[in-house]
Amino acid sequence: MNSLDKILSANISGKFVCVGLDPDFDKLPSNLKSLENPVLEFNRLIIEATKQYAAAYKLNFAFYEKFGKKGFELIKKTLEFIPNDILKIADGKRGDIGNTAKMYAESVYGYFNFDACTLNPYMGKDSITPFLKYKNKLNFILGLTSNPSSSDFEKLKLQDGSMLYEAVIKKILEWNEDKNCGLVFGATNKTDMQEHIHLISKLPLLVPGIGAQGGNFDDVLKILLKSKSSGILINIGRSIIYKSTEKDFAEQSEKQLVCYNSSAEHILNHLPFTIY
Amino acid sequence: MNSLDKILSANISGKFVCVGLDPDFDKLPSNLKSLENPVLEFNRLIIEATKQYAAAYKLNFAFYEKFGKKGFELIKKTLEFIPNDILKIADGKRGDIGNTAKMYAESVYGYFNFDACTLNPYMGKDSITPFLKYKNKLNFILGLTSNPSSSDFEKLKLQDGSMLYEAVIKKILEWNEDKNCGLVFGATNKTDMQEHIHLISKLPLLVPGIGAQGGNFDDVLKILLKSKSSGILINIGRSIIYKSTEKDFAEQSEKQLVCYNSSAEHILNHLPFTIY
Repeated sequence: MNSLDKILSANISGKFVCVGLDPDFDKLPSNLKSLENPVLEFNRLIIEATKQYAAAYKLNFAFYEKFGKKGFELIKKTLEFIPNDILKIADGKRGDIGNTAKMYAESVYGYFNFDACTLNPYMGKDSITPFLKYKNKLNFILGLTSNPSSSDFEKLKLQDGSMLYEAVIKKILEWNEDKNCGLVFGATNKTDMQEHIHLISKLPLLVPGIGAQGGNFDDVLKILLKSKSSGILINIGRSIIYKSTEKDFAEQSEKQLVCYNSSAEHILNHLPFTIY
Repeated sequence: MNSLDKILSANISGKFVCVGLDPDFDKLPSNLKSLENPVLEFNRLIIEATKQYAAAYKLNFAFYEKFGKKGFELIKKTLEFIPNDILKIADGKRGDIGNTAKMYAESVYGYFNFDACTLNPYMGKDSITPFLKYKNKLNFILGLTSNPSSSDFEKLKLQDGSMLYEAVIKKILEWNEDKNCGLVFGATNKTDMQEHIHLISKLPLLVPGIGAQGGNFDDVLKILLKSKSSGILINIGRSIIYKSTEKDFAEQSEKQLVCYNSSAEHILNHLPFTIY
């Protein structure tokens, strides 16, 4: 099953939530902190409790790299806990010149065997091409991000009146010959999402910014499902994995994820048409 | 000595070359390949031979991450070989939302203790702010890069007729309250460099793209030295570290670097004014 199929298969089963595995030692449940490898055990228990309900898992490399070489081992071992049919996303927002991008691609798709990754478009096509050569993978490229400063450059007006992020999306569509491109579009930009839904929904979507960042799950899913989509992953990190810091934290994470899935089911049932 | 001072001090001594330590196993001298840790030994010998003449060293993370957890150890150990008064740059071109950028900054400036790093501006100010909090460090932000596809977005025309990369440089100047911002400007863009030299030279510069990528050292240094600069580092990777694959590779790297320094001395001696 290629990466896009993994998303579509999850979506057909009513699963749209990508669980963001961004472990922060300070926020771990106290009963884990004394263990030899608390972060790995935290990830293991969260995955164990949520894998039945998750559409994907996303590991942001920053949260692992801060542990140095131990962090890379954590990534590798965490991936072993995730079932093969669930999409695994490396969130590193890479972007570099061709021969360097090739090394990053080898690391993410070769060494770690992730199914997908996130990329930064600033440097243009040749910084993306080495990733596109992996035809069964999925490359989520930043369009409009979820952070407040996304307006600094991403929303700059170009000479034709469109915004930079629109030009980026149009380029991604050109680069998508092998159907292995996706788009990162922040949930905090509801108005932009609504306005450009026909452009956005041409690509598989990774939508960050729900919960701690201010985006609303139901609102965003309603907008996305009103258009014939190409695959939807709504990333939720802190609201799921740090739902509780008590001993039953994993169970609470599971319950929270089940609630999101119930919301999705409700929205799907009330659509005036069938999506899949 | 803070990071900016390290560059200025090197420049005053006639050193402008940042040695790019991007080890590629396939390109290593064959006499090293059978060692237990050939990449580390390669780095050690290159640093040993060049440290007297180098203005800085830049490690591109892609070339280390591809070795997995071993790669992070390689970075850490390589840094130990570099003398304290020489600038060490982490080239990861990071860019992520605030709380994630904070983790990357902790990794680069905390765990590894680099002097400087490279950042991608696409996501705007809040993706940069956590790095700016390290006031003695230096944050080189991508302006116009050296790769052919830099024209895809970086050179897009904005409504006021300027190009995206110009808007980025103007923002960096606003963010530079603590004098800890720098600019990445590709050597392959000679015309743009010349045209915008007064804007560009307001920031310490990291200039990639010499040699394998097509930029010319003398041409670029002449342009940069004609303006009152705020610190110049011209990155040279492959042309120095892979000058030879014979047993005397380190000596050949040293000679190549000495040649670049001689060129710089010649250019400095023929300027119609004194820079430093």
